[in-house]
Amino acid sequence: MGAMERLPIGIFDSGVGGLTVLKSMRKLLPGEDFIYFGDTARVPYGTKSERTIIRYSLENARFLKGIGIKALVVACNTSSAYAIDILKEELEVPVIGVIKPGASAAVRSTKSGSIGVIGTNATIKSRAYTKEILALNPFARVVGRACPLLVPIIEEGLLNDEVTRIVIRRYLDELVKEVDTVVLGCTHYPLIKDTLKEIYTDINFVDSADETAKAVREAIGSKREREGKVRILVSDRTERFERIARMILEDEIEVEEVAVDKE
Amino acid sequence: MGAMERLPIGIFDSGVGGLTVLKSMRKLLPGEDFIYFGDTARVPYGTKSERTIIRYSLENARFLKGIGIKALVVACNTSSAYAIDILKEELEVPVIGVIKPGASAAVRSTKSGSIGVIGTNATIKSRAYTKEILALNPFARVVGRACPLLVPIIEEGLLNDEVTRIVIRRYLDELVKEVDTVVLGCTHYPLIKDTLKEIYTDINFVDSADETAKAVREAIGSKREREGKVRILVSDRTERFERIARMILEDEIEVEEVAVDKE
Repeated sequence: MGAMERLPIGIFDSGVGGLTVLKSMRKLLPGEDFIYFGDTARVPYGTKSERTIIRYSLENARFLKGIGIKALVVACNTSSAYAIDILKEELEVPVIGVIKPGASAAVRSTKSGSIGVIGTNATIKSRAYTKEILALNPFARVVGRACPLLVPIIEEGLLNDEVTRIVIRRYLDELVKEVDTVVLGCTHYPLIKDTLKEIYTDINFVDSADETAKAVREAIGSKREREGKVRILVSDRTERFERIARMILEDEIEVEEVAVDKE
Repeated sequence: MGAMERLPIGIFDSGVGGLTVLKSMRKLLPGEDFIYFGDTARVPYGTKSERTIIRYSLENARFLKGIGIKALVVACNTSSAYAIDILKEELEVPVIGVIKPGASAAVRSTKSGSIGVIGTNATIKSRAYTKEILALNPFARVVGRACPLLVPIIEEGLLNDEVTRIVIRRYLDELVKEVDTVVLGCTHYPLIKDTLKEIYTDINFVDSADETAKAVREAIGSKREREGKVRILVSDRTERFERIARMILEDEIEVEEVAVDKE
């Protein structure tokens, strides 16, 4: 096993949502070590400008590169939408985003050819899912819908609440009339997947966490037979992060604070 | 008029909410120049840790000090709650926060002596309003309630919506049974003051924007007879900021982007 092979897989997200991707990767690649960075001092990204999203994504990637990683997983849809090409140029190791795997799963799932995508303002505005889906199936029809209140609602732990259901219906009631498949284009949304399925029983919801984990396994081809370690770093350590992290990972965790915005 | 006198009054907030304070100050001090900085690249502060809130507040204050200001208004409740003493040490000019003026108005307003305070998680956790109110009236009773979903809801422009009303009732129905006065302990909240008054007709809502403007006039004692200028700076320029800024100021605005996190 070479020196490179021994390095962890790096993952970053604007906050806590990307832990849904980490969870899927741990299941699929149990022998690998992971280092997760959540940029909780600057969260959220989804309401910010393209320029700022790219700057933050680059700072996060350079920080993980400095520690030493054998692959980078961009577990944030907003960063994947705006910064994936720039990150691929910046790093010598494989860079895997969440958008391509999600788009590919949606194309396989749809029967009608009409696919809905929900995400942050920035992700929907980027049209990144639409471009990836049309590259795979030029005859598909893609309808995007920004759902800016879902992240704060999920971060409050209101996963199946009256407020959550009203807000979901506000965002999705029209959309689901036109599509048979909806991509959860934000790593927070898997936490309300059960509520979504309860309201819209006929819709197939695509969760890119599992799809991304498969793409990572394909890219690095791991066959390590040992128990991997996980390190979780954040730019701002709060009770809030640890509470939601435990909810997602269903595990006890230790969180370290680091600075990435000072060079 | 001395060189100092000619300088603008500096104001900062984590984002757009502090513009409610700017608006009140322009009315009361029309001859003054103002320079507003909204830290939109790192907004919100209210869900972040004390250490990070202090660091960001210091960076913002040093940035405005570098431009040259004759007074600093901390138009962010979260920053006022955690950083006001440190900012006073850092700057040689008067530093005015929003908490003391709001607390003082609440003490004057209450008849029962029971005062409610609503704000972000960080503001309520700091107990800053409680301390200020008890310093003015040791017999007062203060009940705090964190309302973390109100900022994202207001930033979506849902000022008098079904969702807004359900969330308000969730946060306030119990609180208003115990108090006759509620302090709007977040500079976003004046935007839903009409909705609050519609739901709770017997409660007196204290909006610290006007009170803070009076405290600033007292501190600098301006009598300038000319039309003051306003400059608005942000760390991340977005359509979102400009849309809400126009809604608050009821005026056309120009916004410049600057960096404060690199030294």
